[in-house]
Amino acid sequence: MSTDYRSMWAKLGLDLEAHDMLLDVLGKAYQGIYLSQMGRPEGMGYFDFVMSEVHGLRIQELLEEKAAGRKIIGSYCVFVPEEIALAANATLVGLCSGADFATEAVEKLLPRNTCALIKSLFGFKLGKVCPYLESADMIVGENTCDGKKKAYESLGSLVENLFVMDLPQVKSDQGRSLLRAEYARFKAALEALTGVTVTAESLKEAIRTVNAKRSALHRLSRLRAADPAPLSGLDALLANQVSFYDNPARFTGSVNRICDELEKRIAAKVGVFPEKTPRILISGCPQAIPNWKLPHLIETAGAVIVGEESCVGERGTRHLTDESGESVEEMMEAILDRYLQVDCAVFTPNPDRLSHILEMAERCQADGVIHYGLQFCQPYLMESLPVERALEDRRIPCLRIETDYGTEDTGQLKTRIEAFIEQLR
Amino acid sequence: MSTDYRSMWAKLGLDLEAHDMLLDVLGKAYQGIYLSQMGRPEGMGYFDFVMSEVHGLRIQELLEEKAAGRKIIGSYCVFVPEEIALAANATLVGLCSGADFATEAVEKLLPRNTCALIKSLFGFKLGKVCPYLESADMIVGENTCDGKKKAYESLGSLVENLFVMDLPQVKSDQGRSLLRAEYARFKAALEALTGVTVTAESLKEAIRTVNAKRSALHRLSRLRAADPAPLSGLDALLANQVSFYDNPARFTGSVNRICDELEKRIAAKVGVFPEKTPRILISGCPQAIPNWKLPHLIETAGAVIVGEESCVGERGTRHLTDESGESVEEMMEAILDRYLQVDCAVFTPNPDRLSHILEMAERCQADGVIHYGLQFCQPYLMESLPVERALEDRRIPCLRIETDYGTEDTGQLKTRIEAFIEQLR
Repeated sequence: MSTDYRSMWAKLGLDLEAHDMLLDVLGKAYQGIYLSQMGRPEGMGYFDFVMSEVHGLRIQELLEEKAAGRKIIGSYCVFVPEEIALAANATLVGLCSGADFATEAVEKLLPRNTCALIKSLFGFKLGKVCPYLESADMIVGENTCDGKKKAYESLGSLVENLFVMDLPQVKSDQGRSLLRAEYARFKAALEALTGVTVTAESLKEAIRTVNAKRSALHRLSRLRAADPAPLSGLDALLANQVSFYDNPARFTGSVNRICDELEKRIAAKVGVFPEKTPRILISGCPQAIPNWKLPHLIETAGAVIVGEESCVGERGTRHLTDESGESVEEMMEAILDRYLQVDCAVFTPNPDRLSHILEMAERCQADGVIHYGLQFCQPYLMESLPVERALEDRRIPCLRIETDYGTEDTGQLKTRIEAFIEQLR
Repeated sequence: MSTDYRSMWAKLGLDLEAHDMLLDVLGKAYQGIYLSQMGRPEGMGYFDFVMSEVHGLRIQELLEEKAAGRKIIGSYCVFVPEEIALAANATLVGLCSGADFATEAVEKLLPRNTCALIKSLFGFKLGKVCPYLESADMIVGENTCDGKKKAYESLGSLVENLFVMDLPQVKSDQGRSLLRAEYARFKAALEALTGVTVTAESLKEAIRTVNAKRSALHRLSRLRAADPAPLSGLDALLANQVSFYDNPARFTGSVNRICDELEKRIAAKVGVFPEKTPRILISGCPQAIPNWKLPHLIETAGAVIVGEESCVGERGTRHLTDESGESVEEMMEAILDRYLQVDCAVFTPNPDRLSHILEMAERCQADGVIHYGLQFCQPYLMESLPVERALEDRRIPCLRIETDYGTEDTGQLKTRIEAFIEQLR
C-alpha cells in the first residue's frame, strides 16, 4: 500500500493487529495466485493497483464521500439494487465474506454447519477487520437462503442500522408484489438516511451508470469465447469481484480498456493459455475476495475458466435495466423487472438458471462445467444434482465440487479436478 | 396385524418385500421402546392398536373412504390446513418421514447433507413402502425451509398431483396476503379434486372437528404438568404422532379417555416415573413416526419428558381457530389468523417461539430443555444458539443435540444426556 492508513483504520475501530495479519495473508495470496500468472493483459495493472489498495485508497475515497455528505451502504447480495442507492446519493459496496476469520467467536453465534460465506461475514465483523463494514451507514441483509435469513437475526445486534430486505421464494404475482414493496421500502429508507429524494433524473442517471458497468462486463465475457482465451478465469473473476467495491464509472472505463486490449490480442491470436486448452465453465455459488481457491486449482491444473455462472459473474450482471422509463415509478418498475430475472437457487422453481448454464456453456465454448457448491449451501447443492443430470443428458461433462474456504481438501480437489480435465482433452 | 393386507398393499404398488422388512423393524422398535415401558395408562392400548394397524386397518379405512368418493390428501407440514381439506370432503394425512429408507437411491436425487426428514420422505417414495403416500390423491408440499422447497422440485417428478404451497418468510402484511392467496388456491384445488364446494356449514364443522382434536391434546399437555408425571413423554409423543394419521373424531375421543384416566392417576399421585424425576422439555425439530430415538434415550436415562415444543407437539396444536365466523370468507380469515401464529423457525424474526419455550418450560415445570436439531436443518440449528442463550440467562439448563435418524451416535448421545440429567438432580 502506498500510504500509511493506520490512523484511518484505527478511527474505524479495526483491530490493527488482526487486520495486519489479514492484509499480510491477502497480499501473499494475491502474489502467489495472481501476480504469478503469465501473459496477463497490461490493463490488469489497474486491478492489481485496486487490490493493493482495497483496504486503503478505496476506503479513503469512501470516507471522503461521507465527509461530503454521501452515505455508504453495505450489502451481501446482488438483489440489493445499486441503482436506487446511487440515485439517493449513496454508494453501494459489497461487504467482505470470502475468507475465514475469528472462527471460534463466529461459532458461538452460528452453527458450525453454516456455509463459509455466512460465517465469513460474521468473522469480518467480530474480528474487526472489514473497513467497508465499519464505514457503512447502513447494512442491507436479504432473506435469500435460510442460512442468511436466520443469521441476520444475530447480525442485527452486532451492527448498527441493519436493513433486512424480504425476498419472495416464488416469482409469482405475489412474489413480484413483495419485491416491489421491499424495493419501495429500501428507497424510502435510503432517502431518510441521506436526506436526498430520488428523482426521475437521478434514477435515470443511476440506471445508466449501473447498465454501463454491466455492459462492460458483458463485453469482457463475450471476448472470453475466443480460443486461445485472451484472459485467465482468475483475472475475469477479479474484475467481477472488484465491481462490487470500485467506483462504478472508473470501473467501467477500466474494464473497457482491458476489452480494447483483449480485442487486439484476439486478432493477433494471443492468449494466456495455448489454443485447445480445456475450457471450463464454473457454475454455482459466489466467490468473494479472496476466495480464489477453486479457479486457482483449475487454472494450475491445465484448464482455463471461460465463464462464471455465479452472482460474482453473469448471474449478477446478465440483465440490464430498461432505461426508457420517464417517471420514478416507471423506472422502479423497470428495476423490479430486472432483478426478478436473477436466477438465484433460492427461487422455486428456477428453470432459467439451467437455460443460462446451457447458453453460457455453448457461448463460452466450454468443454465441461464445474459446479461449485459451498458446503452447507442448500439451495445450490440441491440444484447441483439436476444441473449435472441436464448437462450429462447433453453430453457436457460436469464435476460437482462441494467445498469451503479451508485448505484441508486442496489435495483431494486437485486430484479430482486434474482427472476431470484429463477427460476433456 | 389382525388381517392379511398383502393384496391391498400390492394393489397400492408397494414393494412387498421391502415393506415387510420395514414393518418388521417398526414392530420390533415399538416392542422395545413402547411396550417395554412400565405403568402405562390403559388408554394407551388404543394407540398400541393403532400402531399395530398403522399400515393395515387405517389404510383400509382410507381406501373405503376413497371408494365412497372422498379424497385423500397427504402432507408433510402443519401449515397445511386440515380444516379446509375436511370441509372439501377430503381426509388429510401426514406422510411417512421418520426413518431412513432407500438411502442410496435418495442420494442420487438429494445431496447427502440434506436433513434426515427430507431424505426419509424421498426414501419412502423411492422404496415404495408408504401406503399413505400411495393412497393419496394429492400430495401437498410447502415452501418452508430451503431443503424442502428445493426437494419438492424433484419430488414433483416422482408423485402424481403435487401441490406446492408457497409460504411467507416474514409475517408482514405482504406475508399475510401471500398465505391468504395460497390457502384460497389450496381450497380451489381441493374443490376441483373432490367436486365438492366448501360451504359455511362444512367449514364450520371442520373447524370444530380440528379444534376438538387440538383441545384434547391441550388437555393432555396440561395434565403432564403433574409430578409424578402421569404419562411418559414417549406416549405423549405417540399421541401427537398418531394425530396426523387417525380419524379426527375417533382420535379426539381416545385422547380424552386417556385424559380421564390421567386425572384419576394424578388425584391418586400415581405416575409412570417416581416423584422428583428430572423433567425435560424437548424443543426443536419434529419427530415423525418411528423417530423415537431421542425420547427413548432421555426416558431410559432417568428423566421424563413433560412437553414437546415441536410441530409434532405444541407448535402444531397450540392455537385454535376462531369458530365465530359465519361466512366462508370469515372462516378462511380465521384459519389464516390461526396458522400465521405457528412459530416455525423458517420465519424471520421469530420471537414467539422463544416466548413459547419459556412459557412451556414454566407450565410443564421443566428442570431443563433439550433442543433437538436435525442435522442440516438450518432454521432450527440457527435458532438453537439464541434459544440456549435465552434459557441460560433465565438459569434454565439447556442441552443442544444435533443428530439424524441413524444409530451411530447413540452411545455418545446417551453419555451427554446422562450428564445433562445428572446436573438437573
